[in-house]
Amino acid sequence: MRTVHVELGSRSYDILIGSHLLNQLGELMRELGLGRKALLVTDTNVGPVYGARVTEILTRAGFQVAMVQVPAGEKTKSLEQAARLYDAAFDHELDRNCPVVALGGGVVGDLAGFVAATYMRGVPFIQVPTTLLAQVDSSVGGKVAVNHPRGKNIIGAFYQPKLVLIDTGTLDTLDRRNLKAGLAEVIKYGVIWDASFFRWLEENISKILGQDPASLDQVIETCCKIKAAVVEQDETEQGRRAILNYGHTIGHAIELLSGYGTYLHGEAVAIGMVYEARLAHRIGLLDAAAVAGIEELIANMQLPVHLPTGINCQEMIKSMYTDKKVTAGKLTFALPERIGCARVVKDLAESDIMKVLEVVPCWPSGF
Amino acid sequence: MRTVHVELGSRSYDILIGSHLLNQLGELMRELGLGRKALLVTDTNVGPVYGARVTEILTRAGFQVAMVQVPAGEKTKSLEQAARLYDAAFDHELDRNCPVVALGGGVVGDLAGFVAATYMRGVPFIQVPTTLLAQVDSSVGGKVAVNHPRGKNIIGAFYQPKLVLIDTGTLDTLDRRNLKAGLAEVIKYGVIWDASFFRWLEENISKILGQDPASLDQVIETCCKIKAAVVEQDETEQGRRAILNYGHTIGHAIELLSGYGTYLHGEAVAIGMVYEARLAHRIGLLDAAAVAGIEELIANMQLPVHLPTGINCQEMIKSMYTDKKVTAGKLTFALPERIGCARVVKDLAESDIMKVLEVVPCWPSGF
Ligand SMILES: NC(=O)c1ccc[n+]([C@@H]2O[C@H](COP(=O)([O-])OP(=O)(O)OC[C@H]3O[C@@H](n4cnc5c(N)ncnc54)[C@H](O)[C@@H]3O)[C@@H](O)[C@H]2O)c1
Ligand SMILES: NC(=O)c1ccc[n+]([C@@H]2O[C@H](COP(=O)([O-])OP(=O)(O)OC[C@H]3O[C@@H](n4cnc5c(N)ncnc54)[C@H](O)[C@@H]3O)[C@@H](O)[C@H]2O)c1
Ligand SMILES: [Zn+2]
Ligand SMILES: [Zn+2]
Repeated sequence: MRTVHVELGSRSYDILIGSHLLNQLGELMRELGLGRKALLVTDTNVGPVYGARVTEILTRAGFQVAMVQVPAGEKTKSLEQAARLYDAAFDHELDRNCPVVALGGGVVGDLAGFVAATYMRGVPFIQVPTTLLAQVDSSVGGKVAVNHPRGKNIIGAFYQPKLVLIDTGTLDTLDRRNLKAGLAEVIKYGVIWDASFFRWLEENISKILGQDPASLDQVIETCCKIKAAVVEQDETEQGRRAILNYGHTIGHAIELLSGYGTYLHGEAVAIGMVYEARLAHRIGLLDAAAVAGIEELIANMQLPVHLPTGINCQEMIKSMYTDKKVTAGKLTFALPERIGCARVVKDLAESDIMKVLEVVPCWPSGF
Repeated sequence: MRTVHVELGSRSYDILIGSHLLNQLGELMRELGLGRKALLVTDTNVGPVYGARVTEILTRAGFQVAMVQVPAGEKTKSLEQAARLYDAAFDHELDRNCPVVALGGGVVGDLAGFVAATYMRGVPFIQVPTTLLAQVDSSVGGKVAVNHPRGKNIIGAFYQPKLVLIDTGTLDTLDRRNLKAGLAEVIKYGVIWDASFFRWLEENISKILGQDPASLDQVIETCCKIKAAVVEQDETEQGRRAILNYGHTIGHAIELLSGYGTYLHGEAVAIGMVYEARLAHRIGLLDAAAVAGIEELIANMQLPVHLPTGINCQEMIKSMYTDKKVTAGKLTFALPERIGCARVVKDLAESDIMKVLEVVPCWPSGF
């Protein structure tokens, strides 16, 4: 078992990584001194595979478990589904010391985390991520949210879990497409933080795609360490944490405009990273070789690198303006300055963004 | 102008108290360095009286204001109304530096505060309380919430405002019943924290009920200071802050069972304080003279002191168990041990509570 500690004062917690860890969830939760009732949140894909087992593990450790299965998919990150979970918590008579446990991917984690953050002004929250994306990214760092009908993650909070338990064995049942989508965020960490990790990824592509257990453990531990380091520096994204958004400004626009669900989050981010690397090059921040290296690694990980055709350029830029990353009407990008280092750039010229999106201006420059 | 500072590290803020302060709201907000767009939340009673004026004051200070009027009344503290405000924030293109301003009583403050806490994971929040209850209690301390259909304040957060601006002149338009309801919380502060303030209240009843400006200013400043002191010690109610719940365990049950709106919050708390004082006496914590003194002051402030008839005792105790104040199935009460000092008491015998509610047990003792 590998342990990554996230140091946030009174909100510190451990990330535990290993195969077969699920079996220890009950004991580990008991050691946290939580209330006896637990709300177990999972989705309609993960519940049938792991729900009964986790319920049993928790029950054996003395918890009274109520399990709720939400529909699998991004649409589930809604206020309506949150309301359903509040009802379930209320029915199960959870008190403010009783945990909400998220068993699933980023969708379940973000939704259940939002409910944990707001039910009775905050109850203990346990993350049991089961997708690679959730294991390397969404389960760590305390961002929780649901979507607004017109914008991703618009309603949320910063709310740290008490424990993140990563059973890498759960990836065995994850489909390849989702596994690869998770690798997009993995590559992101290499680009923004750790050049040697980036090179290690380049050298281990086939092992990783072959789901070699030791390589995956290595990937997950490294990513969690990087995410922990970033979050420790800037828990509520006042500044530096925003470098984690590399690939995400364009990525989010792609997700939104292609309709949630067409692209997986990681796929959209993969494309976003390619175009944002080009943007970094265009404004003189990143050299051409690095751009090529990023695009190559993404493509070699079997991830998409091209913008979908038929996306309207006006809509694309407009949707970027409604993203949370906008302040005072300025688009903000997290851009690499070399492999292993990124910075936040504000005040980009719209013409540069458009050029990179390979579109011509669609409206007078006064827009 | 009187200033009370609330010291919470990076979340510190000032409470400003005075008549005609509304006129300074724009300038004061500008000094906080906020984004230029503001969402002004008010209700259908307060909006028509103060909405246009506050909009103008903010506009003059350079803010682009979108005002939303929610229906007056406790029912407005709902996820549905929160969703309406998220829509408005989205339409108005608020970014994460732009303030949400609550102009109204505790209902508006709690709802708008919940939206401010969760919109984009938290935007700046400004409280402009216009009821006595909101000025002495709900606008200070960072508790924000909406109700669950079956329980009060079940969905919420701890989220501090950046500024609380109390224009005591706004109380001129408040009806007497709501003014008196606010006095219940005022009395509460005397009982739980400050015996000399309690005596001062006893001696100034007619001035206070006569809305003598200097006396009201004194009342509000004293209460804000006490609330600030309590909150500074225990921001997220891990322990000591719970003494503010004196009168509220029974009060909330009364509100719930009589149907929200039958009793004003302060009226229910007034009754709750009387019965909880008796409970404190019954378990040997508080002497009989103090119980009588509390009941007398409450009655002299023209507040109700009797439980409504026709409330079902089973339901009453059952509803206490669904309150947030329950942990591990134990009812928790904040009880005075003398005038000026209170403590949190767990593990009370249900028989004592029932005796005090003047009801006989309705079910076998094994319940
Ligand atoms: N909070 C954060 O910091 C953060 C960071 C990145 C992404 N996110 C969010 O995460 C979400 C995406 O997460 P995701 O990619 O995990 O998506 P997801 O939760 O939708 O999971 C992907 C699919 O895999 C299924 N699944 C999950 N685990 C499985 C398993 N072990 N076996 C079989 N099937 C399994 C799910 O049911 C789903 O159909 C997005 O909503 C995104 O906004 C949040
Ligand atoms: N957050 C906290 O710490 C906290 C503490 C105590 C109470 N509360 C909450 O506060 C709420 C009660 O607050 P409230 O008593 O202010 O109720 P309220 O907000 O409903 O206001 C009472 C009535 O007075 C009207 N009104 C408000 N200001 C006015 C003015 N200046 N002139 C004319 N009419 C005016 C309102 O429209 C409403 O009809 C409850 O929901 C309670 O749970 C919260
Ligand atoms: Zn991401
Ligand atoms: Zn109250």
